[in-house]
Amino acid sequence: MMKLKGNVLYGQSGGPTAVINASAYGVITQALKHEECVEKIYCCHHGVDGILNDDLIDISKVDPEQIELLPHTPGAAFGSVRHKLTDPEIDDTQYKQVLALFKKYNIRYFFYNGGNDSMDTCNKISKFMKNSGYECRVIGVPKTIDNDLPLTDHTPGFGSAAKFISTAISEIGYDAAAYPKGRVNIVEIMGRNAGWLAASSKLACLSNYGPDLIYLPEAPFDKDQFIKDVEKVYKKNGKCLVAVSEGIRDKSGDFIAGQGALDAFGHKQMGGVASYLVTLFEKTGIKTRAIELSLLQRSANHLSSKTDIDEAIEVGRRSLEAAVNGRDGVMIIIKRTSNNPYSIVFEEARLDQVANVEKTIPASMINDEGNNVNQEFIDYALPLINGENNAVFKDGVIQFAKIK
Amino acid sequence: MMKLKGNVLYGQSGGPTAVINASAYGVITQALKHEECVEKIYCCHHGVDGILNDDLIDISKVDPEQIELLPHTPGAAFGSVRHKLTDPEIDDTQYKQVLALFKKYNIRYFFYNGGNDSMDTCNKISKFMKNSGYECRVIGVPKTIDNDLPLTDHTPGFGSAAKFISTAISEIGYDAAAYPKGRVNIVEIMGRNAGWLAASSKLACLSNYGPDLIYLPEAPFDKDQFIKDVEKVYKKNGKCLVAVSEGIRDKSGDFIAGQGALDAFGHKQMGGVASYLVTLFEKTGIKTRAIELSLLQRSANHLSSKTDIDEAIEVGRRSLEAAVNGRDGVMIIIKRTSNNPYSIVFEEARLDQVANVEKTIPASMINDEGNNVNQEFIDYALPLINGENNAVFKDGVIQFAKIK
Repeated sequence: MMKLKGNVLYGQSGGPTAVINASAYGVITQALKHEECVEKIYCCHHGVDGILNDDLIDISKVDPEQIELLPHTPGAAFGSVRHKLTDPEIDDTQYKQVLALFKKYNIRYFFYNGGNDSMDTCNKISKFMKNSGYECRVIGVPKTIDNDLPLTDHTPGFGSAAKFISTAISEIGYDAAAYPKGRVNIVEIMGRNAGWLAASSKLACLSNYGPDLIYLPEAPFDKDQFIKDVEKVYKKNGKCLVAVSEGIRDKSGDFIAGQGALDAFGHKQMGGVASYLVTLFEKTGIKTRAIELSLLQRSANHLSSKTDIDEAIEVGRRSLEAAVNGRDGVMIIIKRTSNNPYSIVFEEARLDQVANVEKTIPASMINDEGNNVNQEFIDYALPLINGENNAVFKDGVIQFAKIK
Repeated sequence: MMKLKGNVLYGQSGGPTAVINASAYGVITQALKHEECVEKIYCCHHGVDGILNDDLIDISKVDPEQIELLPHTPGAAFGSVRHKLTDPEIDDTQYKQVLALFKKYNIRYFFYNGGNDSMDTCNKISKFMKNSGYECRVIGVPKTIDNDLPLTDHTPGFGSAAKFISTAISEIGYDAAAYPKGRVNIVEIMGRNAGWLAASSKLACLSNYGPDLIYLPEAPFDKDQFIKDVEKVYKKNGKCLVAVSEGIRDKSGDFIAGQGALDAFGHKQMGGVASYLVTLFEKTGIKTRAIELSLLQRSANHLSSKTDIDEAIEVGRRSLEAAVNGRDGVMIIIKRTSNNPYSIVFEEARLDQVANVEKTIPASMINDEGNNVNQEFIDYALPLINGENNAVFKDGVIQFAKIK
């Protein structure tokens, strides 16, 4: 096969994860090994906005020390974006801008690192290039803390968020156990439609105090039953630790809390469900506290899972290799071959099969009462939090890559 | 000097810190070295409640492996309590109960590990024993995340909370910088009357994105000026990161938010100031988010400062040594002899000089505008977050001591 010669462009999109920059590291360092076909490596400054605004970062001008820090850096080191391109069937102006920039910089390899929505963007760009007769290999690089991408066993970003959540729940649970008479602590965890993150709090039970109750978007939430569940635990233990997904909903599918504005992708803005649940206990005399793990769930790189970091880097590397080997319109996925010992292989999925499909927790992992997860979930999630990140501290202050 | 022979009793009191169990470790392991005078080591189950309820833990029955885990364990491994003994001048019934238990178990060395209020309890117990003619060495072991104990340069527990806060602020700041147009993130940090914890967010500035503005109980808070401060930063940078103490108050000294119930010590229950400040921006069109670091500030042992852990252990050891050497009614304090290189010596203070006195941030560390701290604060706080805890993980799950 004649190798396609040209430049690489890598972009980040959607909510940051603790390890999206590890995938960037994988793409960039692997591209550096392909001098025979890759001349220059560019990164979008703020995803598609960087393309539309002709705002690219030339990696050759970035201090290599900063590149080495990428796997230990949260956020989106090259800038992310929540901007969704207009559907090309309605208006293809923006896609023409993308094509113009690709031509200007001779971009022949394009990598877009994101979740469901970004894979849709990626898929549309891939098709537009093909229809325009411009040869460019477009590869989706998966990331999301939500773990809701289909076809892949799990998604880079989830394991680190799960590790932060299970550790934080352990610490909160241990702290809450300090007093003879405790409170009901209700911990709100991210997850709009999929409860993978809230469920991962369960892993704290393997060593320390874990949640007594876990509520997920996948199991219809009933307020009266919830109060009964909590009162039962509280009566027995004098305290109760609850993990709850921001996206819990009632039998009709309506969100329990957070009926806010829509975001750029048309999703309802969530948040505040724990504060709402606390109000349900006002008349019971039981002391309650709402705790939101908030942005730390996705940004606590210092507590990343080594398994997750290593896989995120490897997914980046394999994305680059796939493109160099002629693949286009695909995303690297992870297939698990064994839980114990944990073992995986990397495969590919077509972007159009991934885009806009959400994977939720199967019913088989949730208990009959719909207020906890079971051993099947533990067997699935435990290997993903294994190993600790070697975060970089200087004089006690954590160090992240500074790109721009 | 004839050595006093008898048993040791150690108790934990007040809000847990990430390293209170490190001081327990110091007291216990040092006591084990004094077979010539210490026969048995007991710990109170839930502080003074354990004394009043005759509920003690016999350390000889605890698995030594669990003792070794204490420096890596948050919360209060032996149980804490917020119970304040009745003033003996009003009613000495409870003090008589304490004396009866001390006699029953032949307690000749008593260590109470806590903050201002607990030092008051400790001081009263010391005096009561003396007045009763019962020979018992009573030593206060300092701990508080708030860093508000007087006479000591700093207090075990503060450094680790400061390290968690500065790291979390780094990660939140880096995450928030991912988008081209950001939000105003208002991070609420513990601290009722002293702003040491909120101020420690400043250390994030040494490497990554730190707070643009810091509001402390020590500087009167003006809502209008606050909105102006934030708008100025937001206009310039398109985002703004604010750190705010839960205990900020106006010129008259009234709390800005959280006018809740009183706790057992007669303090107003705080919380919710960030959510309140967010509402001030409703009409401005600026997107804001309230983030509470909540219990993790005091329980995130996994991110403890090694300096803090080491000092907490050493304070425990020296408390034991002081008692064995005949001291009574004192607390070990830390004197700093140099900032750079960081160097300290341990001394003693009388409990009656420590009890109920709060140390706040001196004006010289706060900027003229009252919305930030300066280099003098950085020089003071930076050495206290130095070094990382070697947290114990098994299969990715954090491990804590299990005592009871």
